[in-house]
Amino acid sequence: MIQFFAYPESVFCAKVRIALDMKDLDYAELPPPDGYGSAAYKKIVPAGSIPGLKDGEAALSDSNAILEYLEETAPSPALLPEHPIERAKVRALIGLHDTRIEPSVRAFYAPIKAGKPPRDEVYKQLINDMSVAFERLEDMIDAEPYAVGHHVTLVDVAYATTFSQAQQLAGMFGGELMLKPKCQHWWQAMQSLSHAATSIDINRKAMQDWVAKFIQVDA
Amino acid sequence: MIQFFAYPESVFCAKVRIALDMKDLDYAELPPPDGYGSAAYKKIVPAGSIPGLKDGEAALSDSNAILEYLEETAPSPALLPEHPIERAKVRALIGLHDTRIEPSVRAFYAPIKAGKPPRDEVYKQLINDMSVAFERLEDMIDAEPYAVGHHVTLVDVAYATTFSQAQQLAGMFGGELMLKPKCQHWWQAMQSLSHAATSIDINRKAMQDWVAKFIQVDA
Repeated sequence: MIQFFAYPESVFCAKVRIALDMKDLDYAELPPPDGYGSAAYKKIVPAGSIPGLKDGEAALSDSNAILEYLEETAPSPALLPEHPIERAKVRALIGLHDTRIEPSVRAFYAPIKAGKPPRDEVYKQLINDMSVAFERLEDMIDAEPYAVGHHVTLVDVAYATTFSQAQQLAGMFGGELMLKPKCQHWWQAMQSLSHAATSIDINRKAMQDWVAKFIQVDA
Repeated sequence: MIQFFAYPESVFCAKVRIALDMKDLDYAELPPPDGYGSAAYKKIVPAGSIPGLKDGEAALSDSNAILEYLEETAPSPALLPEHPIERAKVRALIGLHDTRIEPSVRAFYAPIKAGKPPRDEVYKQLINDMSVAFERLEDMIDAEPYAVGHHVTLVDVAYATTFSQAQQLAGMFGGELMLKPKCQHWWQAMQSLSHAATSIDINRKAMQDWVAKFIQVDA
């Protein structure tokens, strides 16, 4: 059985969990032994990072490398389109997620850990920055209803939990993530996907617990 | 003919140039009209970022999406291994490049732009951070002689210019990039690859000119 090393609050881990669930693969989800970066975990997954995957002899790291591996070894249902141009569009949007969108959400973690209260100015700025980051999606996604075309792809898998976490954090800290029409349409479609909903739910609860360790907020 | 939008100082653009050269594709390299992010450029490449590629109807962004597209549409010579486990290893190392290694090199740009002189303490720290980032490679690459296996892959394409720029910046600012044995062995192999050497040379000259705009250094 596949061993999937993950933390419930990680949106990079959520990408992999949603793909595993959509492909109906048999797996056990585990935290990395002694935490990530530990010697015990590096014996299993040499990169020492999460998400990690152990599939027989294969020890994989990096969410995108794992997603492409799953696509190659468990191709049904396909989460990449057939045409190279559309495949490139999917991969470019995943790159945007990893380099621009996810960092705009992760930027909340430092002030939370520092115990800054919900209506601090710093969050107002972060909610605004996050909205600007998400605005870049409006011209790049199809929303018919999925991000690229009529079928679920790795883009939808990559963004689902990040979208949810962005909205959750904005709400907790006294603001709102502004979404343009295509993004709203897409988000509605994503919420009706049961496997995405599972990871969104796991992530939402984990984030609520994590924030509560540092700050008292209304959930 | 393929239109390749790039700046000579970008290591993300160098990735794509090396792959285009290795696959012996016919292309014209151009700067993005009115700079990247401009309305004129977004008409051609909607993401507005570099590197960008226009191949017939296809308008592509994101270096990794472009590399995978080239692999799918111009498969010879192959720059991804055949086996899914090795392909995953290649993609994970590219992820490490984009999220850890390249940012440790890019961190030099801000103090350079601020005009900090060559022996400033800030560079000592940055050279150290960069060495630490590169150390992570030692346990993850094969160096036989290439990063993954006996053939050139997208890992080698991704790291070649970044390696060179890291050494160049360390040298300019009074330090040295410390490389462990496997990394040294690999670097020797890379320098003997003519197509990598072309992009390394373009990048080295562009960086030298760029730094000279802000600070007087010995090249």
